[in-house]
Amino acid sequence: MNDEQFMKLALKLAAKGRGFASPNPMVGAVIVKKGRIIGQGWHQCCGENHAEVNAIQNATENVAGSTFYVTLEPCCHSGKTPPCTDLIIRKKIKRVVIGTTDSNPLVSCRGINSLQAAGIEVKTGVLEDRCRSLNEVFFHFMETGLPFVTVKYAQTLDGRIATATGQSQWISSPASLKFAHQLRAEHDAILVGIGTVLKDNPSLTVRRVRGRNPLRVVVDGGLALTTRFNVMQDLSRTPTLIATTKNASDPAFQKLVSAGAELVSVRSNKKNHVNLKQLLHHLAARNISSVLIEGGSQIITSALKDNLVNRLVTIIAPKILGKGIEAVGNLNIRDLKEAKILSLKSVAKKGTDLIMDYRLML
Amino acid sequence: MNDEQFMKLALKLAAKGRGFASPNPMVGAVIVKKGRIIGQGWHQCCGENHAEVNAIQNATENVAGSTFYVTLEPCCHSGKTPPCTDLIIRKKIKRVVIGTTDSNPLVSCRGINSLQAAGIEVKTGVLEDRCRSLNEVFFHFMETGLPFVTVKYAQTLDGRIATATGQSQWISSPASLKFAHQLRAEHDAILVGIGTVLKDNPSLTVRRVRGRNPLRVVVDGGLALTTRFNVMQDLSRTPTLIATTKNASDPAFQKLVSAGAELVSVRSNKKNHVNLKQLLHHLAARNISSVLIEGGSQIITSALKDNLVNRLVTIIAPKILGKGIEAVGNLNIRDLKEAKILSLKSVAKKGTDLIMDYRLML
Repeated sequence: MNDEQFMKLALKLAAKGRGFASPNPMVGAVIVKKGRIIGQGWHQCCGENHAEVNAIQNATENVAGSTFYVTLEPCCHSGKTPPCTDLIIRKKIKRVVIGTTDSNPLVSCRGINSLQAAGIEVKTGVLEDRCRSLNEVFFHFMETGLPFVTVKYAQTLDGRIATATGQSQWISSPASLKFAHQLRAEHDAILVGIGTVLKDNPSLTVRRVRGRNPLRVVVDGGLALTTRFNVMQDLSRTPTLIATTKNASDPAFQKLVSAGAELVSVRSNKKNHVNLKQLLHHLAARNISSVLIEGGSQIITSALKDNLVNRLVTIIAPKILGKGIEAVGNLNIRDLKEAKILSLKSVAKKGTDLIMDYRLML
Repeated sequence: MNDEQFMKLALKLAAKGRGFASPNPMVGAVIVKKGRIIGQGWHQCCGENHAEVNAIQNATENVAGSTFYVTLEPCCHSGKTPPCTDLIIRKKIKRVVIGTTDSNPLVSCRGINSLQAAGIEVKTGVLEDRCRSLNEVFFHFMETGLPFVTVKYAQTLDGRIATATGQSQWISSPASLKFAHQLRAEHDAILVGIGTVLKDNPSLTVRRVRGRNPLRVVVDGGLALTTRFNVMQDLSRTPTLIATTKNASDPAFQKLVSAGAELVSVRSNKKNHVNLKQLLHHLAARNISSVLIEGGSQIITSALKDNLVNRLVTIIAPKILGKGIEAVGNLNIRDLKEAKILSLKSVAKKGTDLIMDYRLML
């Protein structure tokens, strides 16, 4: 096996942290001595051991003189855990092979430098694209200071998310539903507009799969939300944040706060709507690195228009509706050249549906 | 190799006739003696030898005592060529394995009966679904008396075929364009509305691939077409039929006829539009077994509303336009249960586009 093959294994291990490592990156590590794998580890959960530490702890023999494969540059600073570079040096690792450097300004290339200064041979950029892609959320968050935003909706082939009368439940198949819950579990927050809450009364929790409940965020400029809705239940275990243009002097504001929700007043734009970008900055400050927008059409359209969307997951049901409510409304695009350009990452069949996973080319 | 494997080979041969056999079915034949393939053939072109004749003519040794694999029940009537059952009997074939029976009322099971009456062992229904699916056009034409209708368009992910200002050229990628011409070559006729002619001035001919030009059909209720458009060029080699609600007493009618086009007056429906179903019956009477509808939105919507569409090929470009001209207009569907249901046959990447191939569940 060569460097790329060991890195592939490290990538596989890293991915086991999906939905748990956040807002930390997913990282995998493999230790190889004389061609044999003697240790493996990954970052299992934010606040717990880094992948490097787990791999060394799990090693079946002395790691001195070994080659260490790790998908992301090892940290050289003390956070919740001590620096991994120190451990690697102390354990007399001979060679370190790194997938990609870290964007975190506390680490960026300093991890590599300190390893090299200690006389360790370092190779970087092995399967770099895949290592970066695995942690696209983390890198985006580090590099822009904004959460990585995924928009997800189910549409008919002709781009409808509901009939003209607003009927939308079960456009997609039961098989897609499980996927939708998996997607929730992989995000730090889930965001919907008040329209969706009033119409569908969703719980916005993770069911059907194992995983953490994301923070629930409701965009509700005028505070139409009341305590009887599902997003206002079980707040101690699953917090809900309400973004509004009202302030604390409003009685509705006080009522929702008393019921246990968290409210945030976000500078409104000219239409007296909640300013989504401001809201995302607020979420970033709370260490929310990823947000899943599940609708409705108005929020999706605003997020696209403001270039806040990084990923678009569209479930296409094998149906045609003709006139109806469209997924994406007016983006003020007059010329084909101004169209939002996507890059197809994957397409997969789920039951009778197709799940298309795109990235926005910003 | 077993019966299914030989039938798979016969299916592969049959498919070589795509775009040339029509309105005849595509048929492939394989002759096997003592486990060795001694003859292969397919129906190459309408009016020429049937697959059975070609396989026997190509045989490398005496076919007496052999097993004969054929994707479709051999014919037992004299058309442009003599009955294949007679030839099979005369050549002393021992066993005949058939993919599917023929829907043609002149054949339907009579071919099998005459083989059995001659003492030949007959097995039917080997890879029947695939053999039927290969000739879905032929079977539909035989069983309903109407051409098999394919609707093809390129849309953005959000279901737009043009910007709000009507800009539509190059929504899809160059790689998809070759596919679009291949699709033309596989149909007997290509149909568009006059709006598409006036806006894009297409030639509606097969380029970029080898193949026959389909009959060009323009739906033009009010006869807005003039001789300066591309569909009115080269009429001697590539005929154009214009379906209108006007009749021969109209001067525009006479002008187009004089220029070499063929005009047909089709009973109009209440909106004074050309009645598509009537037009399809007219085309069927001319032995047009398949029609490719390339737009625009109005024709596509009418055809879907009238349940005349069998296949839907949608090219999805990785773009989002928001408001714009939609592929499918008002179908008068008020309830999700009334949605047109599709069945996904295949999805393929072509350049940056996705080509989704659906069948309508009628």
